[in-house]
Amino acid sequence: MLLLKEMVMVIDIKDRVKCAALQGKIVTAYDAALLINPNDKVGISGFTPSGYAKAVPLALAERMEKEPFKIDLWTGASVGDEADGALTRANGINRRFPYQTNGDTRKALNSGAVKYIDMHLSTMAQNVRYGFFGDLDVAIVEVCQINEDGSLVPTTSVGNSPTFVSQAKKVIVEVNVSQPLSLVGMHDIYEPLDPPHRKPIPLETPGDRIGTEAIPCDPSKIVAVVPCDVPDTTRPLAPIDDDAKAMSQHLIKFFEQEIAEGRLPKNLLPLQSGVGSVANAVISGLAKGPFTDLSIYTEVIQDGMFDLIDAGKVTVCSGTALSPSPDGLKRFYANIDEYRKKIILRPQEISNNPGIARRIGVIAMNTAIEFDIFGNVNSTHIMGSKMMNGVGGSGDFARSAYLTIFCTNSVAKNGDISSIVPYVSHVDHPEHDTMIFCTEQGVADCRGLSPVERARLIIEKCAHPDYKPMLTEYLEKALAATKNAHTPMLLDEALSWHKRFTETGSMKK
Amino acid sequence: MLLLKEMVMVIDIKDRVKCAALQGKIVTAYDAALLINPNDKVGISGFTPSGYAKAVPLALAERMEKEPFKIDLWTGASVGDEADGALTRANGINRRFPYQTNGDTRKALNSGAVKYIDMHLSTMAQNVRYGFFGDLDVAIVEVCQINEDGSLVPTTSVGNSPTFVSQAKKVIVEVNVSQPLSLVGMHDIYEPLDPPHRKPIPLETPGDRIGTEAIPCDPSKIVAVVPCDVPDTTRPLAPIDDDAKAMSQHLIKFFEQEIAEGRLPKNLLPLQSGVGSVANAVISGLAKGPFTDLSIYTEVIQDGMFDLIDAGKVTVCSGTALSPSPDGLKRFYANIDEYRKKIILRPQEISNNPGIARRIGVIAMNTAIEFDIFGNVNSTHIMGSKMMNGVGGSGDFARSAYLTIFCTNSVAKNGDISSIVPYVSHVDHPEHDTMIFCTEQGVADCRGLSPVERARLIIEKCAHPDYKPMLTEYLEKALAATKNAHTPMLLDEALSWHKRFTETGSMKK
Repeated sequence: MLLLKEMVMVIDIKDRVKCAALQGKIVTAYDAALLINPNDKVGISGFTPSGYAKAVPLALAERMEKEPFKIDLWTGASVGDEADGALTRANGINRRFPYQTNGDTRKALNSGAVKYIDMHLSTMAQNVRYGFFGDLDVAIVEVCQINEDGSLVPTTSVGNSPTFVSQAKKVIVEVNVSQPLSLVGMHDIYEPLDPPHRKPIPLETPGDRIGTEAIPCDPSKIVAVVPCDVPDTTRPLAPIDDDAKAMSQHLIKFFEQEIAEGRLPKNLLPLQSGVGSVANAVISGLAKGPFTDLSIYTEVIQDGMFDLIDAGKVTVCSGTALSPSPDGLKRFYANIDEYRKKIILRPQEISNNPGIARRIGVIAMNTAIEFDIFGNVNSTHIMGSKMMNGVGGSGDFARSAYLTIFCTNSVAKNGDISSIVPYVSHVDHPEHDTMIFCTEQGVADCRGLSPVERARLIIEKCAHPDYKPMLTEYLEKALAATKNAHTPMLLDEALSWHKRFTETGSMKK
Repeated sequence: MLLLKEMVMVIDIKDRVKCAALQGKIVTAYDAALLINPNDKVGISGFTPSGYAKAVPLALAERMEKEPFKIDLWTGASVGDEADGALTRANGINRRFPYQTNGDTRKALNSGAVKYIDMHLSTMAQNVRYGFFGDLDVAIVEVCQINEDGSLVPTTSVGNSPTFVSQAKKVIVEVNVSQPLSLVGMHDIYEPLDPPHRKPIPLETPGDRIGTEAIPCDPSKIVAVVPCDVPDTTRPLAPIDDDAKAMSQHLIKFFEQEIAEGRLPKNLLPLQSGVGSVANAVISGLAKGPFTDLSIYTEVIQDGMFDLIDAGKVTVCSGTALSPSPDGLKRFYANIDEYRKKIILRPQEISNNPGIARRIGVIAMNTAIEFDIFGNVNSTHIMGSKMMNGVGGSGDFARSAYLTIFCTNSVAKNGDISSIVPYVSHVDHPEHDTMIFCTEQGVADCRGLSPVERARLIIEKCAHPDYKPMLTEYLEKALAATKNAHTPMLLDEALSWHKRFTETGSMKK
């Protein structure tokens, strides 16, 4: 690898910097990192390990190793190890918004070393504009091109970059030559006005273009332009296993029933699918399913979406980021001229906008860590205390969807954890927000059911056979103890399964 | 009181039934109730005890006493005792959507006699249209007038009536002569199309009129027109006590700071205020506060709003229902020609629409039963199991607001319950949805804070002095036990305060 100091001399980005005024601002990542001050609030591009700033965060971490100081790090969502990992290891992050998936950062925020604020991803940009988190000092955004007027063409994600650019006092741009220029034209940038001046966001279907192809930016705000040739370090996806295939089949059958009942059109409604292997498997399963002319309105575009596009089953695929596996990224680059016809990348404030999700009627499919018999979902915490990743966009979609579905394997840790419990150890999606639950065991459709009816159905359809008797026993005991209260809870047993796991290594008695 | 059978002969509603085709359909409530079949799904008007169907539910309950059968009862929100109470006592309710506050109904749903589905109030209408709850058999709506074309002018609430009317197989109309004709013109009826055809709801400010003054209705669907002269039985509001005054003062001071910091305009942003005495006190306090040209975009309009209007401080007040005290209702009727200039009543799908709340940037103020040190809010359940009322509209606003505030007294039951606990016994509003907490003790502004920071601030600012040491002890013990995990929880103590209360009558050790 090149020394960061030398990178600027070797990587020629002049033809990608079309704004003449900025040609003189091309510097090394090392020099750009010197423009960041201790305690700065720094907002960087990136959503999943795609389109994130790489060279300057690495250089900043290098600087912090010698000259210890901290910054607040704001992003779109998770970013690659070059940012989260390197800065965490340099002990350089004070506050971290709004999502992460990095192993080192996870350790740091679960040991008090990093203050982490886990937010609904659609809300970050507006809260920054509202001034709720203080002034943003620096934005660092990866682009594939700077236009004549200084506007910035993002790469494989949009995230919060438009707002970071509009709000930051100074902007550092990383021009990444590993990102192809065929990305130009794939983005649709729209930043709403703030109340009381906001207008309805004029998007009516997933394919509508409502903004500009590039992020507007006053060139005088740009303090440095940095060459970079480090590709996105995307995450591998787990192979699609039998459980994931079973969930996919259950959901296809469920959709067929909804069509038969007249509650869904034949081409369904716009699909949203969360990050991860189960969600990817479900989408991939649809490529072999009976539905055509599908549309996608989602947060991240994973490999399964490419399967759907390749199968000719998708009219349009809207998201805020590509989030393919390393092989998926190669596949995307290799066929980008075809994929770009179907894919639109938007700011996460638009891709994840709950008002739009409700308007266009998305079918939201997200993954739970655990859910309880009454329909509350935990998406974030392991045994109540430890943060896994974050709520991400699941809450943006789940509450506002036409249909909201949570998927999970019925058991984890070789059967020692039941994903269906008496009471979740953290609630990210309250019972009011949930409808349909799916495990490899089956589907529980809880629409219009009371808590006790939901409990019986979830146990019957979704729980693993090993845990069904224990769940039923809990429910009956709670009903008896509370004389059939609305949501019967045993205050001293509700969290006892989690407690048992932490003590014995298994939820089983 | 008149016998229901006789009511039609005495109450002359002919001049309020302007649609000639319907003159021949005027019948008694008794006869109209005969049009309802066992197991019917029945949707009635009403939101809080305002504008609810009265005569036909009473007659139906009378019929059920002799000839036992059940229906599913759908409403806007809570309704008066003539509907919820009478039908519950007649053992006539199978399933009840989406909110209630009746003492007898509460007992029934906490003993397994009624299946209650507690929902975000903005979602009910669309879920009915989507067919998620099955076909609606009968709509019963209270009106003050039927227009020439059959369209229906609601009374003191709109609620879900437009959708019940559009979706029901047959419609029964109660013409209530106790409701003044000055109500005509106060309503703005807009029913969105369903996905994939929905358009952006074109409302940009709280005062915008986007629909019609009456609910469209094909006269051929109307099977009975019933005279009624029973006034709304509204609920008294608790007197504004010192604690409520303190909360009001804390919030006024908080708003002043936000203006000083440039995060709120001088006339604030549209105010939303939940149902109940604390919320009413806060609004009433603003009448004496420094802010002018206020706008209201809320669910229910309580007495405090009349104070604000009378003080000349409100430009417009938009809601789905009037919900005054009995004295407040008299005050409204006495001065209706002035109040009608400022008040707009909308369907709850619009008044509570999360997309609009976010667009116009409401300041959401709602009441919690309890909240925990990490910022999760319980709005519904007593000690985990027993349903109090329901989540109502709080979730429609809390997650989508510009600022979201939860208020509660720091203690209840003469100090034996702390409203701030280690972990709430039911989560209606997860930590991701909350920002600012207010008790009579003070305000905790948790924007941008990590869970542990929130915990320290909530304990410091909001907890009652009697419980501060216990809360701090829990937090420190949890931090030590989890080695500073992101959200430190003691699985065997998190709900122990509730358990202790159920066993000893006090959360105190």
